[in-house]
Amino acid sequence: MGPSVQVVEAIRVNIDTITRYPDPASRVLRETVSHWTGLPEEMIVAGNGAVEITYLLMKLLKPRLVLIPAPTFSEYEIAVKISGGCVKDLPLDEGRGFAIDKHEIYSSWEECDLLFICNPNNPTGVLTTRKDLVEIIENAAQAGKTVVVDEAFMDFVRDREGFTVADLVPQYDNLFVLYSLTKFFAIPGLRLGIGLGNPGVIDRLNQIRDPWNVNCFAQIAGTASLLDETYIKATVAYVSAEKDRLFGEIRAIKGFLPLYPCVNYIFINIEETGYSSTEICHLLGQQGILVRDCSSYKNLRPVYIRAAVKKREENDRLIGALRQLGRK
Amino acid sequence: MGPSVQVVEAIRVNIDTITRYPDPASRVLRETVSHWTGLPEEMIVAGNGAVEITYLLMKLLKPRLVLIPAPTFSEYEIAVKISGGCVKDLPLDEGRGFAIDKHEIYSSWEECDLLFICNPNNPTGVLTTRKDLVEIIENAAQAGKTVVVDEAFMDFVRDREGFTVADLVPQYDNLFVLYSLTKFFAIPGLRLGIGLGNPGVIDRLNQIRDPWNVNCFAQIAGTASLLDETYIKATVAYVSAEKDRLFGEIRAIKGFLPLYPCVNYIFINIEETGYSSTEICHLLGQQGILVRDCSSYKNLRPVYIRAAVKKREENDRLIGALRQLGRK
Repeated sequence: MGPSVQVVEAIRVNIDTITRYPDPASRVLRETVSHWTGLPEEMIVAGNGAVEITYLLMKLLKPRLVLIPAPTFSEYEIAVKISGGCVKDLPLDEGRGFAIDKHEIYSSWEECDLLFICNPNNPTGVLTTRKDLVEIIENAAQAGKTVVVDEAFMDFVRDREGFTVADLVPQYDNLFVLYSLTKFFAIPGLRLGIGLGNPGVIDRLNQIRDPWNVNCFAQIAGTASLLDETYIKATVAYVSAEKDRLFGEIRAIKGFLPLYPCVNYIFINIEETGYSSTEICHLLGQQGILVRDCSSYKNLRPVYIRAAVKKREENDRLIGALRQLGRK
Repeated sequence: MGPSVQVVEAIRVNIDTITRYPDPASRVLRETVSHWTGLPEEMIVAGNGAVEITYLLMKLLKPRLVLIPAPTFSEYEIAVKISGGCVKDLPLDEGRGFAIDKHEIYSSWEECDLLFICNPNNPTGVLTTRKDLVEIIENAAQAGKTVVVDEAFMDFVRDREGFTVADLVPQYDNLFVLYSLTKFFAIPGLRLGIGLGNPGVIDRLNQIRDPWNVNCFAQIAGTASLLDETYIKATVAYVSAEKDRLFGEIRAIKGFLPLYPCVNYIFINIEETGYSSTEICHLLGQQGILVRDCSSYKNLRPVYIRAAVKKREENDRLIGALRQLGRK
């Protein structure tokens, strides 16, 4: 879909901001995020991508043992290890569609002081409900554990009210929410992430972060993105319809078993195709189609790929290429 | 002076790179830095500003006690403290024009495992010679100490060959050089710093840094900047002549004692004006002229301001305003 035209225009007319240091407090951006999330500004920190905030949070909290449902985004584990902590994997059950099970969390987290939940999960696209998360967060609070929920892809979810916990940050001191503006708004080149947490932890993150961590264009583009309601509505509507179409088409191809997607990517089991995931990615790559080979994910059999929902004609090319492979 | 027109143009024609993740290895930029410095690419790391690299380096090396000549750029001390180390100040002698004295370093550094030298120093603008630095680095190597030389403002120095040690990185494993592209090239809004060190330390920095730490425009603008030789020559020539003019004019104003500048800023003793540095900055600020109140620097009497060398007409406004204050 590309970024909002407002964003491109905002960068174009503000090119000369490169000659000034960026606002260390990212004030305008944080005001806009405050308006968007309903959270006060002292619960909001901006970072050079959500990964920077993840690294800083681990550096600050220094958890000894962290529970991470797997497969998931690999940067959580890296951040924990760089800060000197250890990771306990919580293997997600393929047979149950990789759903995160709160009971399995409770029976696994005894020694852990922190839990990551990516919601919707990357790369599977599976959602955990707000109801389950609230119970997990409350149990974690009683046990003195922190819950970090990564909502990097939440903006793509149609009925987000049933899944997001960002608005609950003021209620739970042990909840930290990661939010990204670069996925939904298609600006990953600029680097921009948001952390939502209690004022104490945000204050301490501000003390240990680089004072000018968010570049000028990331601040401008993030603000312009959140203000472009037309783009937001159009993107949700487009991705929502197009992912369903793509899902239906792929499901009809012999050998490809997609999980029903709630986000802008589709997680596909390719076991029955007779190819390995690496071979499929290589063959598609030769046609200029880039999909993610998921064989490097932990606790995942090497029989999955992840494909992005792109423009309609690009999706048609993917469907056509998969049909060719399905004929093997 | 503003940034190179090539830089502005490179951003303008590449706005759509915001839709792709930046190259985690900053390859094109590092190739260009390699060509510019003569160092191999495995000795070069790019960061989200030189401050990010400073923070990462302290996190990696974890020095217990660090010697820092003062006054200087405050981020060194912050980086050391965040990584759990302590700082020993080496007070620079005002009576000797704040010059860094190698003998004072040797008599102060016994317990230290690392030494910062900002060259030219910020905020004083004072240079340390390459000859002295080589001796310091060699003595440090024998004593098992690391020397971090910050050359953020070196590009402004006319006879840089007599001062830079960046080309010596391959010879000394205990030398790390910080380099910035945002000062000379007037792009601080983009965040871009360079670290030059032995391949082992660069490799370990790459392992602990955020994989996408340098945003797309910083990579593009940094590359375009280093390739614009016309801009580089014109900037050195302009700043060199204009700083001399500004120095001469300010020296002629009653009460203002500027240190002879080698860079794009002038360090000025305002003791004899009858104003405090804070008052002067406030009074100039009311006229829209921003100069740096240096009263917050460590080991510096609160009687200094730092003024940037800007466009000729802006410098004339500064001179006019200082003349008004000199008449008190």
